[in-house]
Amino acid sequence: MVLKKRDVAIVGIGSTSFGEHWETGLKELVAEAGFAAADDAGIRGKDIELVVVGNMSGGRFVGQEHVAALMADHLGLNPTPAVRVEAACASGGVALREGYMAVASGFYDLVAVGGVEKMTDIYGSGATSALAGAMDFEWEAYFGTTFAGIYALIAQRYMHEYGLTREQLAKVAVKNHYHASFNPLAHFQNRIKVEDVLTSRLVADPLRLLDCSPISDGAACVLLAPAEDARKYTDTPIIIEATKQASGTLSLFMRKNICTIEATTEAANQAFKDAGMSRKDIDVIEVHDCFTISEILSLEDLGFCEKGKGGKLYDDGQTYSDGDLPVNTDGGLKASGHPVGATGVKQIVELVKQLRGEAEKGRQVKGAEIGLAHNLGGSGATVVVTILRRGD
Amino acid sequence: MVLKKRDVAIVGIGSTSFGEHWETGLKELVAEAGFAAADDAGIRGKDIELVVVGNMSGGRFVGQEHVAALMADHLGLNPTPAVRVEAACASGGVALREGYMAVASGFYDLVAVGGVEKMTDIYGSGATSALAGAMDFEWEAYFGTTFAGIYALIAQRYMHEYGLTREQLAKVAVKNHYHASFNPLAHFQNRIKVEDVLTSRLVADPLRLLDCSPISDGAACVLLAPAEDARKYTDTPIIIEATKQASGTLSLFMRKNICTIEATTEAANQAFKDAGMSRKDIDVIEVHDCFTISEILSLEDLGFCEKGKGGKLYDDGQTYSDGDLPVNTDGGLKASGHPVGATGVKQIVELVKQLRGEAEKGRQVKGAEIGLAHNLGGSGATVVVTILRRGD
Repeated sequence: MVLKKRDVAIVGIGSTSFGEHWETGLKELVAEAGFAAADDAGIRGKDIELVVVGNMSGGRFVGQEHVAALMADHLGLNPTPAVRVEAACASGGVALREGYMAVASGFYDLVAVGGVEKMTDIYGSGATSALAGAMDFEWEAYFGTTFAGIYALIAQRYMHEYGLTREQLAKVAVKNHYHASFNPLAHFQNRIKVEDVLTSRLVADPLRLLDCSPISDGAACVLLAPAEDARKYTDTPIIIEATKQASGTLSLFMRKNICTIEATTEAANQAFKDAGMSRKDIDVIEVHDCFTISEILSLEDLGFCEKGKGGKLYDDGQTYSDGDLPVNTDGGLKASGHPVGATGVKQIVELVKQLRGEAEKGRQVKGAEIGLAHNLGGSGATVVVTILRRGD
Repeated sequence: MVLKKRDVAIVGIGSTSFGEHWETGLKELVAEAGFAAADDAGIRGKDIELVVVGNMSGGRFVGQEHVAALMADHLGLNPTPAVRVEAACASGGVALREGYMAVASGFYDLVAVGGVEKMTDIYGSGATSALAGAMDFEWEAYFGTTFAGIYALIAQRYMHEYGLTREQLAKVAVKNHYHASFNPLAHFQNRIKVEDVLTSRLVADPLRLLDCSPISDGAACVLLAPAEDARKYTDTPIIIEATKQASGTLSLFMRKNICTIEATTEAANQAFKDAGMSRKDIDVIEVHDCFTISEILSLEDLGFCEKGKGGKLYDDGQTYSDGDLPVNTDGGLKASGHPVGATGVKQIVELVKQLRGEAEKGRQVKGAEIGLAHNLGGSGATVVVTILRRGD
């Protein structure tokens, strides 16, 4: 029996600013993003039929598990069912996909998908230690490596194999900070130069402080409805053309080649097939630049350029918002900030702004109609690729 | 547009023993349960299209988040998508429900739903502190209460309101230990007497050590397929007639009445309506007896007896496997053990055994055809009620 599915639209978006929110807790962050999304769609909380929340490590960061029920409770939505999903830094992307299936299948007609992380007010151990929970703890974290260490290994090998220069890596951060300078919600809104990156503190050779995304607090929310009902909520529905997820090894040592993330390629190929689109159809891209090397790797693994040639994309301006291949127009994880559970949902919020034509001047991609989001957990054990299109 | 759904069947089950597994990690526990389920259904790992894992606090217990991807990886299932869901002690029930929707909707044809917790090898802080993450941390845990404390408050009030006796409470544990004495997978297989409970160490007045479910390690797994395909895998498919979830307040002080858990009643009413059944149709029940008082409260809130009269069910033998209302025939959380993320899935494994007629002598309910599972998170902020029926 082949069952029909409905098209699903994003009909409301909301996000907090990303950064250090010392006076705001997990609940308040979600409430701010959630109320903004509800206002955007002109709905009330009671209209929501299911809550899905992406959150990586409420337990480690603030002593709080049971995160989705807490959100439903705090927002006055009881007895609405609430589900937390976790896939490390891909928690938000996976949450979106769970929400998508819930609507596409006809189980629910209005679903709130949130993502949240409160990282600065660390409870118990350090943030770097909590983040290491995204690795295979027994094989990697236990022996003392950190995610900067893991991505440094990748960067070393990649530079050796393909001749990527330190300057090209730096240009990823420079571009992302430039975009963030037009984004009032970004964690860092300052512009930087290649030299700033090259002289910033060494974290894990060759990665320096300005190659690394920051520890941020923040939340984002999107509201999903059947496309056929979308105009009840918005003049510009954004259709989810495809959202696909793939798994890969958690540990780096188990990969055939550490310069490629197979789950990215797998999820991307599935998503393009499902959407009936090619790479050339994409007008704006959000990729998971937890470290500068990750943005380059991801663009290659997504199929936007040949393996080994990603660095060259940064020698001219083509990844800027006015270029041929606009990437991370909100500043990416690097400059917009990376509250890990929120990131995958924030990428969707950014694409919706772009496709609606609502992004700030300086970072809006002219006439963007189709966007792609790439959300990655750990060093690539979970990847979600989502393709969005402005509704007709 | 109303979309059709498919009936969903459970076609394979597997479980580790519950207890202290000092030489077995998170991955090995899931592998043992997963391989057992695959053997039971006669499938290979590669046949699985989606993995859903319920896990409450891998981060706090063993430093491990990204739990579902780890499982897919360890079991050789890459690039199969893997989703961890968390809803405190209801994580397993919510995972089952996510798996159910994935199959009912037609998105997937074979889904593995696992539940796991590794609690004894505690990483960082104590298990009681980690479990407190299921409360509203800022309103309850921060001020020093524990779950034994929370349920003690409920028990005190309930005994005051309805005249429940200390002996009746004890009889819940006595019955569950009796059932567990026939269950080779149970954490505690010893029989106890009312006097043993009454003289065990006081934990939080009136609850004593033998009123409390233990800290356990363990994993359970079920395989879901469309009912129409079920006989490819098993001679006795078990149909998921309904699985419903509801949310309630995390904090006790926000409830109108702490002697009732509204989310249980809500989820149960929805489930019975969806299944087109009444309480009288149920032959065997798994309820969430994290503490003895919870079993009594839950039977009332589920509608199996009038509020305040639950204690009387224990004055004769009717909750035993040969009684009119067999409850927790595997020993429940109290004696079978409570690895929190695994519990909701293990309840389903137990019901499937009962409905197949495969439970051990002494605890098998004769001719059981329909069973109900009640899985609860925290003090009732998440509740999942699932009704299963032996396929024709």
